[in-house]
Amino acid sequence: MNLDTFFRADRIAVIGASREEGKVGNVVFKNFLEGFDKEVFPVNPNADEVLGYKCYKSVRDIPGKPELAIICIPAKFVPGAVIECGKKGIRHVIIISAGFKEVGNDRLEKDLFNALKKYDIKCIGPNCLGVYASRGHIDTLFLPKNRLKRPKAGVISFVSQSGASGSAILDLAAEEGFGFAKFISYGNAINVDESDLIEYLGNDADTKVICLYVEGVKDGRKFLETCKKVAAKKPVIAIKGGITDAGKKAALSHTGSLAGSAEVYFGAFKQAGVTIAHTLEEVFDYMKVFEKVQVRPKGRKIQVITNGGGFGILCSDAVAGLGLEMSEMSSAVKNSLKKKLPSIAAVGNPVDLLGDATTERYRLALDACIKDKNVDVIVAVVLSQTPLIEKEIITDVLEEFNNRKKKPIVTVTTGSEFSEKLKQEIEDSGLPCFRFPFNAVRAVKAYLEYYKKI
Amino acid sequence: MNLDTFFRADRIAVIGASREEGKVGNVVFKNFLEGFDKEVFPVNPNADEVLGYKCYKSVRDIPGKPELAIICIPAKFVPGAVIECGKKGIRHVIIISAGFKEVGNDRLEKDLFNALKKYDIKCIGPNCLGVYASRGHIDTLFLPKNRLKRPKAGVISFVSQSGASGSAILDLAAEEGFGFAKFISYGNAINVDESDLIEYLGNDADTKVICLYVEGVKDGRKFLETCKKVAAKKPVIAIKGGITDAGKKAALSHTGSLAGSAEVYFGAFKQAGVTIAHTLEEVFDYMKVFEKVQVRPKGRKIQVITNGGGFGILCSDAVAGLGLEMSEMSSAVKNSLKKKLPSIAAVGNPVDLLGDATTERYRLALDACIKDKNVDVIVAVVLSQTPLIEKEIITDVLEEFNNRKKKPIVTVTTGSEFSEKLKQEIEDSGLPCFRFPFNAVRAVKAYLEYYKKI
Repeated sequence: MNLDTFFRADRIAVIGASREEGKVGNVVFKNFLEGFDKEVFPVNPNADEVLGYKCYKSVRDIPGKPELAIICIPAKFVPGAVIECGKKGIRHVIIISAGFKEVGNDRLEKDLFNALKKYDIKCIGPNCLGVYASRGHIDTLFLPKNRLKRPKAGVISFVSQSGASGSAILDLAAEEGFGFAKFISYGNAINVDESDLIEYLGNDADTKVICLYVEGVKDGRKFLETCKKVAAKKPVIAIKGGITDAGKKAALSHTGSLAGSAEVYFGAFKQAGVTIAHTLEEVFDYMKVFEKVQVRPKGRKIQVITNGGGFGILCSDAVAGLGLEMSEMSSAVKNSLKKKLPSIAAVGNPVDLLGDATTERYRLALDACIKDKNVDVIVAVVLSQTPLIEKEIITDVLEEFNNRKKKPIVTVTTGSEFSEKLKQEIEDSGLPCFRFPFNAVRAVKAYLEYYKKI
Repeated sequence: MNLDTFFRADRIAVIGASREEGKVGNVVFKNFLEGFDKEVFPVNPNADEVLGYKCYKSVRDIPGKPELAIICIPAKFVPGAVIECGKKGIRHVIIISAGFKEVGNDRLEKDLFNALKKYDIKCIGPNCLGVYASRGHIDTLFLPKNRLKRPKAGVISFVSQSGASGSAILDLAAEEGFGFAKFISYGNAINVDESDLIEYLGNDADTKVICLYVEGVKDGRKFLETCKKVAAKKPVIAIKGGITDAGKKAALSHTGSLAGSAEVYFGAFKQAGVTIAHTLEEVFDYMKVFEKVQVRPKGRKIQVITNGGGFGILCSDAVAGLGLEMSEMSSAVKNSLKKKLPSIAAVGNPVDLLGDATTERYRLALDACIKDKNVDVIVAVVLSQTPLIEKEIITDVLEEFNNRKKKPIVTVTTGSEFSEKLKQEIEDSGLPCFRFPFNAVRAVKAYLEYYKKI
């Protein structure tokens, strides 16, 4: 299903555009005005103009043909508005309005379905936040920007069954510096469902990583087959809401989803090569490693480098505890490195560069790890409380070795402002940086497992 | 063992105080000058004054008797300096200097041990960061304040075998707004070991929560008995480095610790009522819940309140997945609440107050949960992307109900600046606030398990 128009349309009708501050139709219309390259047409039978734009009584009065209509009017008027869209030749609508089958209005949803079908209209929604497309400047999220930060343009696309959860995730992702291609809250999925969206994103050149929050799916077989096909091409990270009886009960009263057996889902995800996240934090950790790391791992042997002994130990415990392998550098490389480091530095796994570690020591250690055939992945801890850690560690060492694209490099730093700034700079330079050893290693595991499967 | 002097001394000698910017003896001396209420005496045979203070060739030249000496001179001079301290009548020293048995200088460590013994001197160190005591204004952490933020005064005390890990933890704790009573990096533990420190903190009125990072302990029986005694009085959270073979190997080359069998440690911790953290993140999560929550739980039944359906589901999954119990409010309370909320709000567990939830709806829900006998603990999700969440939700509802001290209340919020500010304000008002549902529920579990045991 080609869904490009939802994310790239240039001529857009906003049905229900409003002059009233804070109303959904007001926020949505304003969002489009802030996008610089759209022709937007407010539609509202009760206004002559909205925010300085000529307002139309019906989409049919708009000169020429809009490609996409955003609908934010009371539910009972939606089927009528869709018929108008159909007559006008609009074939894509995003329906924000709620009040359909999710509140028991099955009849109204059926009417809507028929109207869409009659005119062959593709619909995202109803009962959703709709779409945020960073590059296409489509933004139907009706939550104010001071509450919900929009992420910068990037390679992650997120499909969420839950509006509020989705928006909290998007907001945090923006804060944490993730780059998004597309975000879609699809609500009742009347004729475009999660599988259609995943399939579309699988073919979307802007999307490198796909994330899902699902409670229940409409068509299990279609979903599994789609995931399988797409996960063979790019990483798909999924978190499932309603994996326990308590969660299932909650899901039923939330989106009316039959959440299904967790075992069936996890089995299907596994079979399809989907990366399973058990918590939201895992979603974020996995997004980070899949977004940043550009090189396919050659094997599963992990080398730890550190300037804090305790953190080296915690990394080692995580590697072994998660069933991964610690590398064992060759004697030749180790001996050569040993000669160049202070005598009390530990040259094993971890390599401990000590509390007075300098940029130069990190360079020597990384160089050895990159050279050594026994090392597949590098986890570099950089604790910045010690005084000799300078910014050059990023530009002169981490970034440089990362740009060679020889082996995946993942970093860890922990602390306050100074560390947070370092972390941001490491990530801006293209490497994933985690706050805690365990999270870094767990993300590495997810990365390795994905590439083992494809 | 009474260790008060280490944390409260008013007359302090800094042996090795230096004029040279960046040197350990310079940083340590300066830190004391910034504390406003100490008499500090720099000792350095090669200087007449340090930073405007008259400098002494030896501690013996200092007028009157200092209570505590901080020693930061090359290792080989340390035993001599300790003898001088002994002759002066000083009975407490903190030795920052490294270069003893941790680098194979067993002989020098033995000399030091004997000198300490001869004069009955208690010693923290050598080879450590020493002590940070927020109320006593003792700060021997020689890492600059722009790299290592110091936490505000509070009720958490932290004992760390690892200097760098400890400092990274302290730094992050400061950033995250935790309040600390005391932090001790004890290094080689020459005659004051982890057990002595834990026992002391167990009797310390300023300390409400004790955290440990250990790799290996000197005397297992003493450690177990101390933990048992102390954990019966206040929560003790422990993270153990070196729980796998890979981690043990790393620990051996770090602090020379024989890390011992993880099973033995975990078994002992469990038996002693110590809260086991498997990752640094768990340490932070558990610190938060033990620091903030002021009320003992009556039972294990958890009620979730939310304004985001998906987050309610994820909370429910966490509760059930972690083996906790979802509460079932009585029909009377439920019916009464149902009448006051919009018809499509879900009144079960979770209570879903919907995307347009107001402060008033949270008040109604919390009031019902506080009243209902079937609810023991409340997890309140407050997603702030939705526009009707106002600051009053903290002052008028969360804080108010929390101050009644009827039931533990734990909160969750997720997002960018606006949420982070809300989170900070919720925590300032005295409630723990977590970023992700799972972390909140896992911390609640640790809390319940601790109180189940004592």
